[in-house]
Amino acid sequence: MRRRLLLVSNSTLYGGGYLQHCQEQIATFFGLHIKRILFIPYALHDQDSYATTVTEKFQSLGYEVDSIHKALNPVEAVRKAEAIFIGGGNTFRLLKALYEKNLVSEIRKRVLQDGVPFMGSSAGTNVATISIHTTNDMPIVMPPTLGAIGLVPFNINPHYLDHDSSSRHMGESREQRLTQYHEEPNTPSVLALREGSMLLVEENKATLLGSTRARLFARGKPATEYEPGADLSFLLSGESWL
Amino acid sequence: MRRRLLLVSNSTLYGGGYLQHCQEQIATFFGLHIKRILFIPYALHDQDSYATTVTEKFQSLGYEVDSIHKALNPVEAVRKAEAIFIGGGNTFRLLKALYEKNLVSEIRKRVLQDGVPFMGSSAGTNVATISIHTTNDMPIVMPPTLGAIGLVPFNINPHYLDHDSSSRHMGESREQRLTQYHEEPNTPSVLALREGSMLLVEENKATLLGSTRARLFARGKPATEYEPGADLSFLLSGESWL
Repeated sequence: MRRRLLLVSNSTLYGGGYLQHCQEQIATFFGLHIKRILFIPYALHDQDSYATTVTEKFQSLGYEVDSIHKALNPVEAVRKAEAIFIGGGNTFRLLKALYEKNLVSEIRKRVLQDGVPFMGSSAGTNVATISIHTTNDMPIVMPPTLGAIGLVPFNINPHYLDHDSSSRHMGESREQRLTQYHEEPNTPSVLALREGSMLLVEENKATLLGSTRARLFARGKPATEYEPGADLSFLLSGESWL
Repeated sequence: MRRRLLLVSNSTLYGGGYLQHCQEQIATFFGLHIKRILFIPYALHDQDSYATTVTEKFQSLGYEVDSIHKALNPVEAVRKAEAIFIGGGNTFRLLKALYEKNLVSEIRKRVLQDGVPFMGSSAGTNVATISIHTTNDMPIVMPPTLGAIGLVPFNINPHYLDHDSSSRHMGESREQRLTQYHEEPNTPSVLALREGSMLLVEENKATLLGSTRARLFARGKPATEYEPGADLSFLLSGESWL
């Protein structure tokens, strides 16, 4: 398997610009050989404006961007892509569009078989995992299934937020929501990425990068914390389903 | 139409006990003639414990509780119910169970045709509306559709939370999420109920009750605020779909 993934928790970190907090990791990840990146803007409504933001940012890092919403044939655009970036927004809207345009299996094939580097941010990270069952987003539309591209065999919860004990709001905390997920049968582990963190996957090696810790929720076990730099390759074991 | 509904934003208000903040409204709503309430606990995993909490609270108000999870035939339990209460928890899990047990149309019929008083709280309020597209919950399981019981022709967002400008978290605010909902075609109005508020519906009259304001998001219009006591009957107009 030639898989190379950069799965980022959040597109913007407090006080910074778009993708600013992870720009070094992006440049290292795509490197010198990649020239053009195929951008997938389906998670937001205004795709033209979204493509402009992304193009400007990637140009500043030395990459040209083609936004798939301008392609006559999106499947063909994925087949020809040197590298792929799926941006954030609403995860349900994003996954629905990916299925409607027959891109889910095509992206999976390009990334897992052909080794096309894949970057996701926020909703784009959610759809890269086995399912979007642990998105934080509102189900404003319904995709045909919550099963997703499946580039890794576990779930991610992006924008993970620790409980604020000073809050008077009585809605469930993120930890309570993820615990409810594991009350359901046969649910995989969930890697909760705080804002500022990201996961680098190279073939069968997974490494936590960024400035914040991640929290791992595994079924029937206490949650555990991992520092930036931690080797999380164990999350990739048992990938017989690929 | 003999509809009578009490749709509560949240089961527990900061600093209070279970359903304490709305106990006067509950007693007024069910009144003296109702003796037994059918409780639907499907939104939480531990239904025995949930039924105990609810039974104790309603007994303190003078009502006996039958929890539907103890019934041999849930459809029959709904057919015989004097009154119905659906409690909070995970909205996706709740709606999935209601469909699996063939209760959605049965509850609709009992409430809209037979005039059985219906109370919902949090997830129980979400499923009472036209759909659960504006739930805050994590999609830990998938119901066959997000279409819900449809006791009112609009959506509710319970536990509505104003944006905290001091927060450093970069996930979408509730207002942004609801605005994204209205970017999608043919989406109905969303009544956002802050914690502490509830909606009383009596036939074709809707009134905001409780201690906090509600915010109404209507497609293509600026959001508007309503004070407790406000007449929101206009939300019930155009119910030709019933």
